[in-house]
Amino acid sequence: MALRHIALFRWIDGITPEQVAAVQEGLAALPAAIPELDAYAFGPDLGLGTGNFDFAVVADVADEAAYAVYRDHPRHQEVLAVIRPLLADRAAVQVRI
Amino acid sequence: MALRHIALFRWIDGITPEQVAAVQEGLAALPAAIPELDAYAFGPDLGLGTGNFDFAVVADVADEAAYAVYRDHPRHQEVLAVIRPLLADRAAVQVRI
Repeated sequence: MALRHIALFRWIDGITPEQVAAVQEGLAALPAAIPELDAYAFGPDLGLGTGNFDFAVVADVADEAAYAVYRDHPRHQEVLAVIRPLLADRAAVQVRI
Repeated sequence: MALRHIALFRWIDGITPEQVAAVQEGLAALPAAIPELDAYAFGPDLGLGTGNFDFAVVADVADEAAYAVYRDHPRHQEVLAVIRPLLADRAAVQVRI
């Protein structure tokens, strides 16, 4: 089994495509920096459902210890510092898959 | 590329383990009933983060058409009928992975 971390974001009104692109750029660099990431998927909502959140990050790691490394990693924290001011809402879980 | 549907649930207060088990049982039967599901993962939050939601469902399908089959499938709708009264909150996206 593995551990899947999921975070869904609802952006603040007025967020710009450039700001979203900066988030994606930061996230895209994380797998190379954090070997504990077995799989890493992220991206904008496709607009198929009403009331959906705007963005998702899905990180698959081996276990709780690997998740803690990812969660606390400086490079991850740097991206979170970019993301936090852009958030209107966030929904997250960590589940066993 | 593929399409990933993610739904996070926050349960109502007082939900019982039996009610959660009934949801899991219903979800567990869906991959066999819905061949469009390329990967299907679900489960309770592990309690590693404050303010987390309680449960996640992650469905990987090929594309929008396959997602529509899953979303509207009678067997999926049956499980949703079990889930809906148990929901205090729901956060969802569909993203390209």
